Amino acid sequence: MTDLDRLAVLEAKDEIRELTAKYCFAVAEGDAAGIIDLFCTDGVFSMRDREWAGQQGLRALYDGAAAGVTPKPYIQNHIIEVNGDDATGRCGVEIRMVNKGQAITVAGHYFDTYRKVDGRWRFARRDFKIFHWVPLSEGWA
Amino acid sequence: MTDLDRLAVLEAKDEIRELTAKYCFAVAEGDAAGIIDLFCTDGVFSMRDREWAGQQGLRALYDGAAAGVTPKPYIQNHIIEVNGDDATGRCGVEIRMVNKGQAITVAGHYFDTYRKVDGRWRFARRDFKIFHWVPLSEGWA
Amino acid sequence: MTDLDRLAVLEAKDEIRELTAKYCFAVAEGDAAGIIDLFCTDGVFSMRDREWAGQQGLRALYDGAAAGVTPKPYIQNHIIEVNGDDATGRCGVEIRMVNKGQAITVAGHYFDTYRKVDGRWRFARRDFKIFHWVPLSEGWA
Repeated sequence: MTDLDRLAVLEAKDEIRELTAKYCFAVAEGDAAGIIDLFCTDGVFSMRDREWAGQQGLRALYDGAAAGVTPKPYIQNHIIEVNGDDATGRCGVEIRMVNKGQAITVAGHYFDTYRKVDGRWRFARRDFKIFHWVPLSEGWA
Repeated sequence: MTDLDRLAVLEAKDEIRELTAKYCFAVAEGDAAGIIDLFCTDGVFSMRDREWAGQQGLRALYDGAAAGVTPKPYIQNHIIEVNGDDATGRCGVEIRMVNKGQAITVAGHYFDTYRKVDGRWRFARRDFKIFHWVPLSEGWA
Repeated sequence: MTDLDRLAVLEAKDEIRELTAKYCFAVAEGDAAGIIDLFCTDGVFSMRDREWAGQQGLRALYDGAAAGVTPKPYIQNHIIEVNGDDATGRCGVEIRMVNKGQAITVAGHYFDTYRKVDGRWRFARRDFKIFHWVPLSEGWA
């Protein structure tokens, strides 16, 4: 790699880390349009055995089930591999939710693919692997 | 931007992320002088409808009310925009506290402005927007 | 420092941050061999007044006591100082564990030293300073 390429890789990783931060902010604010704007137009979110694909699918998720539990996600421990305008990543996440009047605590990992479209990095795909999704009062044992 | 400017921006963001980490460490250690040293001399911390300004104001906060609840903050999801020697940022935070013998859990966001003074990035202003500040035994529902 | 040195320092810090993320992933997956591969062959982990040193010592920890409580660590707030092929760092950590059927929550800091061996950054030493290690149902008060 040239020195310029090395600089570009660091910049790409920096932007992708901020992409996941913006995701946390938009989710915490229940801003479905803002979340969807962070995805490619053919972006996909998957969880357990379900998948939400494209603008319409993602809107169904982020305006519907996800909004109902008012999630506050906190993302950490991010590794990213950049290959030109494509990248893959993995990061940890802890989420505070509310469901039927109960505090819920969630922990897991996102397995991501990213794509640079029109000069901006976006989520191509987010696969959410859940460790546990439990009432805070019961805990994760 | 020249390549050298691009490198300088990445270095500034790296230093600002470490500034917020140092803040977490100093707060966790109850080191009020150490915390205040991370702020500009005219720095401000605000929360709810209150504001603590300048060395004396910040000391009143970090030696007083804040110290009393022995906070352990964990900061994540940081986005930063650098403009010369000024910068703005936003980051998520979860805090573990103790109040009147009770474990308290806090979640929210910091909206920050930073300024480079005497060759070192510092907090010019930290506005703390709180999602919830509740006993762990009751949860955030 | 030359511009090239500055770039190399940012790359080293980026790789070291990913090293700690890989540590979190390997620990969460109970992958003892994967964890040990992140350490130097003479690497050390210490906690309270105990120390686990070298491949065999680390295996005793990560295959034994640590595996038994299925820890899910989340690392944040990382500061790193690089000096050639050596580096030191400090970071915050929150860990979700299970012990005897009980959800355990842990908070603390890692004080790390890193060394670049065979072109890859590794842990030379991890000293874990614990704030608290308590049942979630009791909390940290």
